[in-house]
Amino acid sequence: MITPQEAISYFNFQDKPSDLVHLDTPIPVIDLGIVLNNLVKAQSHFDKLGITFRPHIKTHKMIPLAKIQLRLGACGITVQKLGEAEVMAEAGIQDIMVAYNIIGQRKLERLVKLARKAHLTLVADNEFCVNQLNSAAAANNLTLDLLIECDTGDERNGLGHALQVLKLARTIVSSSNLRFKGLMTYPPSGKRKQVASILSDFRSALTENGITVEIISSGGTTDLYSNEGLDVITEYRTGTYVFYDRMTLQNGCCTLRDCAVRVLATIVSKPTNDRLILDAGSKSLTSDLVGLDGYGVDPQTHLRISKLTEEHGQMDLVDAEKNYKIGDQIQILPNHVCPVINLFDHVAIKLDGEILGMVKVSARGRVS
Amino acid sequence: MITPQEAISYFNFQDKPSDLVHLDTPIPVIDLGIVLNNLVKAQSHFDKLGITFRPHIKTHKMIPLAKIQLRLGACGITVQKLGEAEVMAEAGIQDIMVAYNIIGQRKLERLVKLARKAHLTLVADNEFCVNQLNSAAAANNLTLDLLIECDTGDERNGLGHALQVLKLARTIVSSSNLRFKGLMTYPPSGKRKQVASILSDFRSALTENGITVEIISSGGTTDLYSNEGLDVITEYRTGTYVFYDRMTLQNGCCTLRDCAVRVLATIVSKPTNDRLILDAGSKSLTSDLVGLDGYGVDPQTHLRISKLTEEHGQMDLVDAEKNYKIGDQIQILPNHVCPVINLFDHVAIKLDGEILGMVKVSARGRVS
Repeated sequence: MITPQEAISYFNFQDKPSDLVHLDTPIPVIDLGIVLNNLVKAQSHFDKLGITFRPHIKTHKMIPLAKIQLRLGACGITVQKLGEAEVMAEAGIQDIMVAYNIIGQRKLERLVKLARKAHLTLVADNEFCVNQLNSAAAANNLTLDLLIECDTGDERNGLGHALQVLKLARTIVSSSNLRFKGLMTYPPSGKRKQVASILSDFRSALTENGITVEIISSGGTTDLYSNEGLDVITEYRTGTYVFYDRMTLQNGCCTLRDCAVRVLATIVSKPTNDRLILDAGSKSLTSDLVGLDGYGVDPQTHLRISKLTEEHGQMDLVDAEKNYKIGDQIQILPNHVCPVINLFDHVAIKLDGEILGMVKVSARGRVS
Repeated sequence: MITPQEAISYFNFQDKPSDLVHLDTPIPVIDLGIVLNNLVKAQSHFDKLGITFRPHIKTHKMIPLAKIQLRLGACGITVQKLGEAEVMAEAGIQDIMVAYNIIGQRKLERLVKLARKAHLTLVADNEFCVNQLNSAAAANNLTLDLLIECDTGDERNGLGHALQVLKLARTIVSSSNLRFKGLMTYPPSGKRKQVASILSDFRSALTENGITVEIISSGGTTDLYSNEGLDVITEYRTGTYVFYDRMTLQNGCCTLRDCAVRVLATIVSKPTNDRLILDAGSKSLTSDLVGLDGYGVDPQTHLRISKLTEEHGQMDLVDAEKNYKIGDQIQILPNHVCPVINLFDHVAIKLDGEILGMVKVSARGRVS
């Protein structure tokens, strides 16, 4: 547990607007009370299961929230890109998984510097990546911890066959400056049993060949609280659970009360009685539809953003809402919160309806 | 005209990578030679027509490019949001159109400060906005120049009927601290004649009632070089013409040789022989489909990005391209370049195949 007062101490609030009306729109407003509930609930869940919890900071990208996650008991953090890891290591975070094949000379140079600041767990799904990592580590007298990324049905990155996994593990084990630590996957949603079965097979293929599998890391927000297929997993990674969004609400893995972020927008035009225009477009909400109807919704009225250009969002009015007027503020639940936060240098934090201040999205745009 | 050497002098290149291989991917790479051709061509076009040219900086968001546009003869710049105007005024740009209803107390305070630094032309399409602007101007002993935004078929912001335009113009004319300057529209594509006819009717409604219309400002990249409906226009605004993109290429308003931006990405995984994974996802390319097939294309091979998550882009390989290997770099023509540039703090500039350096996207994320 953590008190709101202790949580607030992780932020360094300065420019403090007195209320929503004094925020420049469009701006994401984050309810810290909801965030703390989400963080505590997930950490407690994995504490009870005896599974290591390693939250992914790609959703919030904020140093204070990463530190609160660690304070609550996370073993470390997950990042997707080296740039995110650099920001978090600079802030003093000591245990970071970079869940992405690191490829290329410039990135390896940065990786070597980073490895001197924080303990890294890396992943790879191919020999090219493994060999580059080993060469860079050897040239700099480092030993790097490495997991193999496995495809358990999501069909993105990862090896999908036990023999491929065994082959790559043998390469890692025989590499002078790499330590093989285990397996990692970003699983498909709703298929926990299938994922567990695949990971179990991969583990067997390795252990039967004398290779120790210390870590099996899975993740995802959709199945965060599923009780299926947990036996094989030693570690869990998830990002969106910090804020949730319209997509996760639609998926049924949260309620509206768990959704911590609204993009505050202002009605700037009402050209006809049938539509109004908000000052939030794709440069604030992204164009992510993720299978939903519209580019965001006002949960109070269920009005959706039906049309979006870069700086304009259109809502179609039906009779009941025609009394909306220019200058009114609307709070939009974003479709997919991760890329939305990534559009803003700063976001507003509120607690019990009061704006506490602005916080820097320090790892925003750290895409390389 | 401008020589590449003079153009380069507008940049302050420091960290200079020697070639593409030394750029961290994903990163937009901009061909300055193509940019200069695009800028010179458009400026010359409007110079010959005797129409004022006021490029929109929402696409590039970079101070050096805005200054080159002015050096070539632009009368000033257009911005969409106050934050963009603040960045450009801070850099010394003196003539700025903010093509957006400015609504809300915080924004009015910022607007007053800005009006002391640069000459502003504002737009409004409603009484609420006009009255707020006048109050703020009066309270600060300012006089603000104002255009009425008109809907000429695009159905976004703007007044669509002559009587509405006349009514709002009368409000502006009778406002103590506003100067009515004319009409502004963001027109629908391919309907220049219709747009001209509407604007002409609106102008007549005003002049017949003794209201002088000094400026009629239209814009858009798709019809940039159309010769239709130009008589009524005194000013033209356009943004995407600086870089062009896959959308404008598809629209037929540019050739591939006019497209100045590629997002350089690295192949980080080839999990099967049928697909490869790039390190560019929606946090580098956006999810903008704009009616196209896929989230970006490699113009050399015509390979499209068929699937996109936040940090992964998937290309489906057919036989001919199966020799792509992990570590190779691919140059992606983005679907919609404006929101892509908005994702990066810095982008790379090249000329004649050589990387000149990195430039700051100073107005990136200035969405409010």
